[in-house]
Amino acid sequence: MSAGSRDEAESLRYSFLGPAGTFTEAALLQVPGVEQAVRVPAGSVLTALNMVEAGEVDAAMVPIENSVEGGVTATLDAISVAHRLHIVREALVPISFVLASAAPLATEQIRTISTHTHGWAQVRRWAESTIPAAEFVPASSTAAAARGLLEEEPSADAAVCSPLVAAQLGLHVVASGIEDVAGAVTRFVLVARPGEIPSITGADKTTIMIPLPQDRAGALMELLEHFATRGVNLCRIESRPTGNGLGEYYFSIDLEGHIAEARVADALAGIHRIAPGIRFLGSYPRADEKPQQTTAEVSDEAFTAAAAWISSLRHA
Amino acid sequence: MSAGSRDEAESLRYSFLGPAGTFTEAALLQVPGVEQAVRVPAGSVLTALNMVEAGEVDAAMVPIENSVEGGVTATLDAISVAHRLHIVREALVPISFVLASAAPLATEQIRTISTHTHGWAQVRRWAESTIPAAEFVPASSTAAAARGLLEEEPSADAAVCSPLVAAQLGLHVVASGIEDVAGAVTRFVLVARPGEIPSITGADKTTIMIPLPQDRAGALMELLEHFATRGVNLCRIESRPTGNGLGEYYFSIDLEGHIAEARVADALAGIHRIAPGIRFLGSYPRADEKPQQTTAEVSDEAFTAAAAWISSLRHA
Amino acid sequence: MSAGSRDEAESLRYSFLGPAGTFTEAALLQVPGVEQAVRVPAGSVLTALNMVEAGEVDAAMVPIENSVEGGVTATLDAISVAHRLHIVREALVPISFVLASAAPLATEQIRTISTHTHGWAQVRRWAESTIPAAEFVPASSTAAAARGLLEEEPSADAAVCSPLVAAQLGLHVVASGIEDVAGAVTRFVLVARPGEIPSITGADKTTIMIPLPQDRAGALMELLEHFATRGVNLCRIESRPTGNGLGEYYFSIDLEGHIAEARVADALAGIHRIAPGIRFLGSYPRADEKPQQTTAEVSDEAFTAAAAWISSLRHA
Amino acid sequence: MSAGSRDEAESLRYSFLGPAGTFTEAALLQVPGVEQAVRVPAGSVLTALNMVEAGEVDAAMVPIENSVEGGVTATLDAISVAHRLHIVREALVPISFVLASAAPLATEQIRTISTHTHGWAQVRRWAESTIPAAEFVPASSTAAAARGLLEEEPSADAAVCSPLVAAQLGLHVVASGIEDVAGAVTRFVLVARPGEIPSITGADKTTIMIPLPQDRAGALMELLEHFATRGVNLCRIESRPTGNGLGEYYFSIDLEGHIAEARVADALAGIHRIAPGIRFLGSYPRADEKPQQTTAEVSDEAFTAAAAWISSLRHA
Repeated sequence: MSAGSRDEAESLRYSFLGPAGTFTEAALLQVPGVEQAVRVPAGSVLTALNMVEAGEVDAAMVPIENSVEGGVTATLDAISVAHRLHIVREALVPISFVLASAAPLATEQIRTISTHTHGWAQVRRWAESTIPAAEFVPASSTAAAARGLLEEEPSADAAVCSPLVAAQLGLHVVASGIEDVAGAVTRFVLVARPGEIPSITGADKTTIMIPLPQDRAGALMELLEHFATRGVNLCRIESRPTGNGLGEYYFSIDLEGHIAEARVADALAGIHRIAPGIRFLGSYPRADEKPQQTTAEVSDEAFTAAAAWISSLRHA
Repeated sequence: MSAGSRDEAESLRYSFLGPAGTFTEAALLQVPGVEQAVRVPAGSVLTALNMVEAGEVDAAMVPIENSVEGGVTATLDAISVAHRLHIVREALVPISFVLASAAPLATEQIRTISTHTHGWAQVRRWAESTIPAAEFVPASSTAAAARGLLEEEPSADAAVCSPLVAAQLGLHVVASGIEDVAGAVTRFVLVARPGEIPSITGADKTTIMIPLPQDRAGALMELLEHFATRGVNLCRIESRPTGNGLGEYYFSIDLEGHIAEARVADALAGIHRIAPGIRFLGSYPRADEKPQQTTAEVSDEAFTAAAAWISSLRHA
Repeated sequence: MSAGSRDEAESLRYSFLGPAGTFTEAALLQVPGVEQAVRVPAGSVLTALNMVEAGEVDAAMVPIENSVEGGVTATLDAISVAHRLHIVREALVPISFVLASAAPLATEQIRTISTHTHGWAQVRRWAESTIPAAEFVPASSTAAAARGLLEEEPSADAAVCSPLVAAQLGLHVVASGIEDVAGAVTRFVLVARPGEIPSITGADKTTIMIPLPQDRAGALMELLEHFATRGVNLCRIESRPTGNGLGEYYFSIDLEGHIAEARVADALAGIHRIAPGIRFLGSYPRADEKPQQTTAEVSDEAFTAAAAWISSLRHA
Repeated sequence: MSAGSRDEAESLRYSFLGPAGTFTEAALLQVPGVEQAVRVPAGSVLTALNMVEAGEVDAAMVPIENSVEGGVTATLDAISVAHRLHIVREALVPISFVLASAAPLATEQIRTISTHTHGWAQVRRWAESTIPAAEFVPASSTAAAARGLLEEEPSADAAVCSPLVAAQLGLHVVASGIEDVAGAVTRFVLVARPGEIPSITGADKTTIMIPLPQDRAGALMELLEHFATRGVNLCRIESRPTGNGLGEYYFSIDLEGHIAEARVADALAGIHRIAPGIRFLGSYPRADEKPQQTTAEVSDEAFTAAAAWISSLRHA
C-alpha cells in the first residue's frame, strides 16, 4: 500500500488506538485526505497493527512516545520485533486536556472525575488545587471516560479528555488547558505494510532496528562509527531487551535522512555486514519539517565521485 | 539514608506504586528485612518518589521497565530530571497473572473481568480463547481490580491480578499462569535520598543521566569513546527529550560496574569534562548477580600503575 | 605497463639504484624473468624514478625502508608526491655484508676500508674489534666502494659491500657476515607507470597517500575509522610534512589487502569523500606472502549481501 | 642533567653529528649559552648518543627528520629503542647550500665537486644546469667535503656544504642558495639523560614511543581514542618495526602539549594501561613556538572539576 498516494482516497481505511476521540485520532486527522477515509478505532495498539497486517486497513496510527494512554514501549517492540510493518509518516499532537461534563456544571458540583490513569497523572496538581474533593474513577482511555458521561448510568460527573472527543460528543467544557505541564507534545506514527517508500523531502527520518549479538564495551560504538563515518545524525536511540533471554539486546534508532540518500544507504549497508538482522522500518517525512543539514563530504555527489574514483582505479 | 543497612530495620519506611498487592509490592518484598518495615502504597510513581524527597519514607520501590501498570517512562524522567534521588537497589519480578474471583467460580460463569489495561493486553489471547464472551472492565491497577471483587457492589466477576494480591486477599484462583508470553520479567528500582552508596559487590550497575548540548553526528560516539577507552560496558541506553524544547536530549544509561572502581570513575570524570551536567543516579548491586567481567588493562591495578608511572615522570 | 606480465620479457628494462651490485640490484634480481631483462643502474632514486616516468624503462627498483644506502625518505616522498607512479611489487633483501679485497689479503694487512657511510655504521663494531687500525674511506655506495678496489689507483685496501657485488666483480672475500646486527632485512619496491594492477593473490598490500587538510585532534582517527569499519589492517603509517608550509601533512599508509577486495575499495571510497586528494600508489603481492586474515563480516560476500539488501529496500 | 639550566654554562659539553660545520652544528649553535660550552663532534648519531649515556657530554644534538646527512631513521630508533634518553629541545635549521672553494674560482674552472650523496641529490638540478661537466666526489659529510678542499691533496675543486662550515674554514663562496628546492627545513633534537623536564611554555611537544603487541584493525585506533578523548593533537606519527621479528611494531609519536598538563598526562596514563611498555621521551618547547590551542573541556580546570565531582560522589 502507499497511504495517501492512492487516487481513490475515499476508499482508504485507517485503524487507530481508539476509541474515537483519543489523541491518537487527533494525530490521524492530520493525515491529508483522511476526511474521506474510513477510521477504525482499535482496542489496543497491537489490535490496530494486526488489522494492518491482516489487510483489513491500509495503515494504523499509533502512539510512539510519551503517550497519555500508554502502550508506547509496546508499540516500539510491536513494530520492531513482532511485525513486518513500515512507518510511513509521523505526527506530533500537543497534549492538552479539558475537563468536560454532560451538562453545564460548576466546578464545586463535581464529585467524581473519570479518565485514564496516565491522563490523571498529568492533571493531578490542577485537580488537587481546584477540586480537591473529587474522586478519581479509572477508565480504559480518556475518550472512554468522556463517553462514559453519556451512558444511562454515567461513570462520573466529569471526565478529563482531549478537546477532540469533547467536541465530537458535544460535551460541556468546564475548564480547558488543565494539564500541569504546558507545551507537551506526543509523537505518533502511521504504520503500513511494506511497499513504496514515501518520497524524499529533504526533511526525513529513517527508523531502524538492530539486533546486537554481543554485549560488550565498544559494540555499540562499532555501530555508531558506521553512522559517524557517513555523517549520519541520530534523533533517538534506545536499547531494548529482545525478550529472547538475558544479555540480548536490540537498538531502536531514528536517524536523520532517507534511504534514498547515499550516506544513509551506505551506513545501513555497513551495519548490515556486522548485524545482518538489521530491520528497516521506514523512511518518512519529519513531522517538524526541520530540513536536513549535511556537509559536502557526505553529499550524494561525494559518494558518486568516490565510486567513480574507485572504478577508475580498478579498470585502468 | 542507606536502605537496608540501618540496624533498627523495623523503623524503616518504604513507599511503592500501590495499592497493596501490585507487582511493585512483590518487588519490594525482595528487599532484606522488609518484613519489619512499614510499606506505604502510593497512588502514582511520582507520589512515591515525592514521599522519599519529603523524608516521609526512607526509599521508594518503582517500576523502571516493561511495567504491567505503566509509568515507566515517567519513572525514568522523574528520577533523572525532576528529582535528586539515587537508585540503591534493583529487583526483577517475573510477570505472571492469575484469574481470581471472590468465591469459587467456573470459567463459563465469568461475564466481566476487571484489570489494568496493560494487564489486559498481556492476557488477551488467553482470554479470547478461554472466555471469549467475558467483557473487560478497566481498573486503575491489577491490585485495585482484585480489591474491587470484594466490594459491596463487585466491579466484576473476576480479576486479572498478581499471585501476590490474590493471596493477600484470600481470593479464589480460577486459573494461573494465564499470561500470553511466558517468562517476562519486569525491572524495578529502589530509590532513596543521596547518601552512602551501596558497597561494591563485584556485580554492580551504575545509572547516569547525561544532558547532551549538541545534536550532531558523532556527539554520542564521543561519549561512548569515554566508556570504550575504559572498558566499561553499557547495559542500557536511551535518548530522551529533556522537555526544554526541540533538539535537546539527555541520555539515560545503565553501565556495568561501580563508582568505587577506577575504570568507572575515570570514565565518568572524562564525560564530566564534556558534559558537566552529568548526573550520577547510583551504583548498586545487579539483581541478576551476573559477575563483572573485565580485562587486566582496566583493572584498578592498571590504573594505579599508570598513575604511578605519570607521577614518576613528573617528579623525576 | 605491467612489469612481469609481458611475454617478450627479454625486452623489459628496469632501472635501479646503482651502481651494479647494490642491495637494490639484489632486490631486482628477485623479479621473475629479470635475467632476460635489461638492468639500468641509476645514480639516485630520483633518477631511477624519472627514467620510469620518461618511458626509458618499464619499472624501477628502489629502497623504501631501512636502506643501507639511504634515500628512503626521499623515495617515499618521491613516489607519493612528486611522481604519478604505482608500486607493482615489493622485495625483501637480507642485509649481510662482506669485507672484500681485490687480491687475497690477511686482515692485518688492511689499512683502509671503503664503503657507504650507512654501511660503515652497520659494521662498525666488527671493524673496531677486528681491524681497529683501519681507516674509513667514504664511497657513494657499497658497490662503488667495491668497484673502487679495481681501479688503477685503488680507493682502499678493502671494501664493505654486498655479497652480490663481490661475486659480480670476482673479488676476494676476506670475511663475510660481518654486520653488527644479524637478521636485518631491507624492503624495496618495484615502481612502474600506472597501468594494469597486479592480480590479487590473497596476500597483498595496498599503498596510499592521504593529504590531511586539518591538523587537529581526531582528524587521523576519522581516517582510521574508515579502515576500522571495514576491518582493514594497517601495516605501516607515517605522517610526513607535505613541504607546502607548516601544519600541512600527508599520511603514507600501507594496508593489508587489494583494491579488488570490497573492503579495501569501500574504505578508500570512504576516505576519498573526506580527503579527495587521496592517491592510490598500488596493490601488489606481499613479499612475505603472509596470507590475508579477515572476518566474515568484511568478506566480499558480506558487501554483496549488504548491497543487495539496500537495493531491495529501495526498489520494493 | 638539565641542559641549559646549569649556571656554570661554560662547563657544559655537547656532542653533535660532526664533523664541525655540519647542519647539526648549526642546530646546536641555536642553544642559548652554547658559545661558552664545549662542542664535541661525533662520527655518527649513535656515537653522539653513546657519549651522552656514558656521561662524557651533557647532551647531544642529532638530526631527526629530513636530514641532509642521513641517520634520521636510525636516530629515532636509537632514541626510542636502544637508549634511555630524553629529548629536551628541538631546533629547526633552514637547509641552504653554498658551493665553496679554497681560493676564488670561476664556475667554469670547477671539474670536481665533493659533498655527501644526500647533499648532492639536493643540488643536482642546479649542478647539471650550471656546471654540467663537473664530476661528483662522494664525502662522508658536507663538512668533510669542505675540509677536504684544504688538504694537501684536495679531494676536489669545490664542495657543496653549509654556509656555516664555509665561514668556519674561511672558504671562498662560489655560489650560494644553490639548493634545488628552496625553503626546506630540517629538524634536530637535543638529547640528554633523563632528569628534570624542561618547564612548560605553552608551546610544547611531547615525544613518546608505544610498542603495540597486536597487529590488527583498530589497534591503532584504540590508541588514538585515548588522545581524542583528551583533545590531544598529534604532530607526527610513524609505525616502525621493533626489529624483534615480523608483525611487531612500535609507534613513534610527537604530540602537542607537555606532560605537566592534565590532558597529556591523562592520555598517557590511559595508554599505559593498554601498552605498559610505553616510553616517555621528553616534553620540550616547540622550535616553531606555535602556541598550544585547546578547548575548555580539556583544560586543567576541567580535569580538576571532574576529579572533584568524582570525589564528592565517592565520599558523600
